[in-house]
Amino acid sequence: MLVRLRKNLTEPELAAVHGLARQLGLRPRFLDGTSDLLQLDGRSGPDHRSRFEDLSAVEAILDPGEARERFQRAAGQPDTVIAVGEGRFGGGNVTLIAGPCAVESPERLLEIARGVRERGATVLRGGAYKPRTSPYSFQGTREKGLEMLARARLETGLAVVTEVLDPRDVGAVSEIADMIQIGSRNMANSALLQEVGRSTKPVLLKRGFAATLREFLLAAEYVLAGGNSQVVLCERGIRGFDPSTRNVLDVGAVAALKRMTHLPVIVDPSHASGRADLVRALSRAGLAAGADGVMCDVHTAPSEAHCDGHQAISLDEFARIAADARVLAALDQRSVMHCTEVVR
Amino acid sequence: MLVRLRKNLTEPELAAVHGLARQLGLRPRFLDGTSDLLQLDGRSGPDHRSRFEDLSAVEAILDPGEARERFQRAAGQPDTVIAVGEGRFGGGNVTLIAGPCAVESPERLLEIARGVRERGATVLRGGAYKPRTSPYSFQGTREKGLEMLARARLETGLAVVTEVLDPRDVGAVSEIADMIQIGSRNMANSALLQEVGRSTKPVLLKRGFAATLREFLLAAEYVLAGGNSQVVLCERGIRGFDPSTRNVLDVGAVAALKRMTHLPVIVDPSHASGRADLVRALSRAGLAAGADGVMCDVHTAPSEAHCDGHQAISLDEFARIAADARVLAALDQRSVMHCTEVVR
Amino acid sequence: MLVRLRKNLTEPELAAVHGLARQLGLRPRFLDGTSDLLQLDGRSGPDHRSRFEDLSAVEAILDPGEARERFQRAAGQPDTVIAVGEGRFGGGNVTLIAGPCAVESPERLLEIARGVRERGATVLRGGAYKPRTSPYSFQGTREKGLEMLARARLETGLAVVTEVLDPRDVGAVSEIADMIQIGSRNMANSALLQEVGRSTKPVLLKRGFAATLREFLLAAEYVLAGGNSQVVLCERGIRGFDPSTRNVLDVGAVAALKRMTHLPVIVDPSHASGRADLVRALSRAGLAAGADGVMCDVHTAPSEAHCDGHQAISLDEFARIAADARVLAALDQRSVMHCTEVVR
Amino acid sequence: MLVRLRKNLTEPELAAVHGLARQLGLRPRFLDGTSDLLQLDGRSGPDHRSRFEDLSAVEAILDPGEARERFQRAAGQPDTVIAVGEGRFGGGNVTLIAGPCAVESPERLLEIARGVRERGATVLRGGAYKPRTSPYSFQGTREKGLEMLARARLETGLAVVTEVLDPRDVGAVSEIADMIQIGSRNMANSALLQEVGRSTKPVLLKRGFAATLREFLLAAEYVLAGGNSQVVLCERGIRGFDPSTRNVLDVGAVAALKRMTHLPVIVDPSHASGRADLVRALSRAGLAAGADGVMCDVHTAPSEAHCDGHQAISLDEFARIAADARVLAALDQRSVMHCTEVVR
Repeated sequence: MLVRLRKNLTEPELAAVHGLARQLGLRPRFLDGTSDLLQLDGRSGPDHRSRFEDLSAVEAILDPGEARERFQRAAGQPDTVIAVGEGRFGGGNVTLIAGPCAVESPERLLEIARGVRERGATVLRGGAYKPRTSPYSFQGTREKGLEMLARARLETGLAVVTEVLDPRDVGAVSEIADMIQIGSRNMANSALLQEVGRSTKPVLLKRGFAATLREFLLAAEYVLAGGNSQVVLCERGIRGFDPSTRNVLDVGAVAALKRMTHLPVIVDPSHASGRADLVRALSRAGLAAGADGVMCDVHTAPSEAHCDGHQAISLDEFARIAADARVLAALDQRSVMHCTEVVR
Repeated sequence: MLVRLRKNLTEPELAAVHGLARQLGLRPRFLDGTSDLLQLDGRSGPDHRSRFEDLSAVEAILDPGEARERFQRAAGQPDTVIAVGEGRFGGGNVTLIAGPCAVESPERLLEIARGVRERGATVLRGGAYKPRTSPYSFQGTREKGLEMLARARLETGLAVVTEVLDPRDVGAVSEIADMIQIGSRNMANSALLQEVGRSTKPVLLKRGFAATLREFLLAAEYVLAGGNSQVVLCERGIRGFDPSTRNVLDVGAVAALKRMTHLPVIVDPSHASGRADLVRALSRAGLAAGADGVMCDVHTAPSEAHCDGHQAISLDEFARIAADARVLAALDQRSVMHCTEVVR
Repeated sequence: MLVRLRKNLTEPELAAVHGLARQLGLRPRFLDGTSDLLQLDGRSGPDHRSRFEDLSAVEAILDPGEARERFQRAAGQPDTVIAVGEGRFGGGNVTLIAGPCAVESPERLLEIARGVRERGATVLRGGAYKPRTSPYSFQGTREKGLEMLARARLETGLAVVTEVLDPRDVGAVSEIADMIQIGSRNMANSALLQEVGRSTKPVLLKRGFAATLREFLLAAEYVLAGGNSQVVLCERGIRGFDPSTRNVLDVGAVAALKRMTHLPVIVDPSHASGRADLVRALSRAGLAAGADGVMCDVHTAPSEAHCDGHQAISLDEFARIAADARVLAALDQRSVMHCTEVVR
Repeated sequence: MLVRLRKNLTEPELAAVHGLARQLGLRPRFLDGTSDLLQLDGRSGPDHRSRFEDLSAVEAILDPGEARERFQRAAGQPDTVIAVGEGRFGGGNVTLIAGPCAVESPERLLEIARGVRERGATVLRGGAYKPRTSPYSFQGTREKGLEMLARARLETGLAVVTEVLDPRDVGAVSEIADMIQIGSRNMANSALLQEVGRSTKPVLLKRGFAATLREFLLAAEYVLAGGNSQVVLCERGIRGFDPSTRNVLDVGAVAALKRMTHLPVIVDPSHASGRADLVRALSRAGLAAGADGVMCDVHTAPSEAHCDGHQAISLDEFARIAADARVLAALDQRSVMHCTEVVR
């Protein structure tokens, strides 16, 4: 690892650098008589980079070298493939997740679940606990919502992904969900990340509105470091300056992330656009950029939706998106998972 | 309240609008034969705006009218003044908060606490639970840190503000702290906001990296709606596009917020700049723009700091900032609080 | 057109509103006794919206109604198809533009031109006048560069697009170029836009680093209003907050623009990513989102490049991008143009 | 200068590096057997950094060392003081610039000019050539506007600053104006920057909506490199993501720029806020952060204003801003210039 130190260091600051190197079993040597370019040799662990970055003496890590975090893809390392029900993310597998933004009624959920299953989804999404900007907005059906999701899984064979907001609910959500979602607003909620790190369920981690790629990957690292290696990353649009669009789907991030990490990367074109009429174009763009999957808001009666009804797409539109997905995946010899289990 | 509906509504969507109006005791009437401009008359509550915004039929609230959230300053409404120990925020009172980024050792904390007290602070900050981007970074001294803060208060008379990350820790932190801080990364953590809404301690709410003013104020509304009316807002810099500066201190937000809300507004020039040499200029700018206080990272031995050591300022620099504050406050006939209690 | 006026207008402000309405032949009437919602009826011209927006009395245009700018796609209006040499943009035609960032030597330019022609480009790009952030950077071969481009066209049959920076050079560039490019840094350079508005050559207008879609379209309007209806819009990445990527390719903008305007929309994945290894993914994403073309930086000897050498792709990579383009275009029954002229 | 090269360089790329070093009279040596950390010793010129950055082989300049651009403040170098009429920017001098956004009628201009002079301005602003987002908006009174400004100077003794949009107008504007303004939209218009670089008049350069500080300073460098050393920088708000505020006044940039460059730095709180009611707070914040001056939009009849009327402040408000300025300047032993010439 090559580290750049600040200029004019005090004795204690320099001592702190040497002390940490010793503690981590690394051998420090300054390059060529410089007093700020420090090469650290020795076996590196995933925590080394952060620990040096935290020292006030350190200006920047010029080259992390062997100090690779767990999320990092080493040269030649293949994709990590993550299984969620019959869905597979990564390694040539493309998975479609679809469902209503919020879980509202058992009948509506089942209707949507059946519809998306027929059309190509292998995972059902639906929020039981809703993260709302306003305290006065519908906060979700909570435990009842979880029950409705479990019922829908029984009836359709779809796996279930749902968001958890509170570390105290991780247990209950883990019981029901096949995959636990951490939303954008909680991407940097270390307490929640540590809690799901202790879980054995796969995690769907959404990028924060204005998170850099490194911040996003380090949020995933909290889960990995906690012992849970099953993290799927989701690009859902970043905050932009044009009020006419909700967010900006960052397809460059999808492409860059696939190179930086071995973890799967999917896109959420629904929350990115906030417009039902642009979801299909963004879904195609995300898959074309290399995403391992797409997650869509689908609703059969948007006027009833308790949140984001205007951005939900119809089953017909989802069918078109699924068809696009199969063609786009084939471009790279990838394939879209589909449900095979026979259900009633 | 004047609401704009989307075009080409379906029957159910329109019914949902009328149903909600009825439920809230409001009388709807379309303006002038239009089918999208809906005036709602009647007594409005703080939840009305959000509830209409959530309907898929609603495009925008053109004029909230009487539907004012709790945070909103009504015409002529004076500042809410919030007391924290001998500190007072708002209503002509300016308060200085200072201390180390993280609480590390009792001796160091006490040294810093005494130093800032002498120089003008009435509230001591120090993180016992640290929100870190990386799981490998120092996470804080936790309960021991809370004990150290309590000890420092005993010895100096300073009130204490410290951050809580996990709803499960709110009880313990409330026991010790005079003021509970919700950090930027958790501004939209509804579970945490609801928990501190149930507390009786004042809350210091930091603006998220890329939160709009309305999102920021609605986060405060979670706390107010929960029954805790004591919220101080903190502008700490928003995410920018220039990598050479850490964040952008949004003084326009300070000025705008003071008009939008009756709640006090302070600035954190330390986290905004990430540079010890710019803290003083930003502190002055924030106060000049109308902020009710300033919160600084101060450390007597930055090389020992477990986080953000390079941005901490010295006691001497804090003294200069306090002197500036007194002059700037006086420009508007405001005054800076100072500790009067005699301590050992 | 439905206009919202500010509250508490002065007599002169209100008179200015009525005066303008009269001048434009519009009949104003307030809705339903309101004093701020003004409906304007009558025949609307492309300038009406801007002229009302400029009045201090006007808060916002709630509904432009018939006041459509020239760039706007009316309901059902088909794509405008723009021809550049054998290239066609829009209306089911996809065109590939490729070439070096800067025109340096005749031999190199010809080598690259022949290479990209064989592989699917119909238009050659190359900068003779380079817009550089630093005055010390290579500013371009200027007139000699134009001659080299003309020579390359003669030899290959490719049409030529090149950037103009100075209104005084529009004449000379128009002589040589088949298409004139206005770069991001000059998107809002009204003097330059007005000058190319007087030209008869098609214009390639690049979106500014942080331009909203409306600002972008109004920049195009300068050219259209000047009499030149041939404008192709280019999304080339917007400024983001993550220093690890150069810009953020805004595919949502591509999709939204195709709905807002009848003008063709292409993407520049080279300047968007700044990384040769991501150009292909972004090119695919842009086309999948609906772009009418792609413009790439291609170089056969990047180490010689006077600017942006590290982001240039090879001929082989361009061939792969062209193959992707044919498949992606076919998804929507669109086709990629190719050179048919026999050349020596 | 310490340069970091990319990994896996080709022979030609490495040769280009050595070739440039030779050409510039620098001696290259790799540090400590590394193949990417290159130290360049020898006399450095202002162009050296940019020229190395442009090589495809170069990843980054780790330390510019002696390769300082003309704008850079060397250690201990004092402020450059720029004189405009009786105004002085920098070196302890604070100057107020005020006037209407656009020059409309001689009577109105004179009324405003007299008013701001009495209240503390030494420089009159007024746009004769207006940079408009829409081609249908009022473009300015042009040459007639210049004449009106000249007349107002004669009558009041105020110096005049006005914007130029087109390189072809630089001569005419230079004739009349005491200071030439380059607006935000043209900050990166190299043709225009080069033209004013040939002028002998001081230049007021406004920061682009989303320009980094280095891009801003390199734009100034175009002028300095052209031979015109009199550049005053103006921070006028950067593009943000909150549609409720026009721009974000970046006071941190003001503070950082004062350390990076010896050139004066002022703020434009009018265009930053877009709200007459926040101009005063932003003006105070800018001066408190260290700005060498403030430029305000002032109008005696905003309803007549052809552009931005809603953000113009009254003469009374300007008087309050001027009073604030005197107090804030005094905090740092600085003083505000005022007109002393006796006029009729």
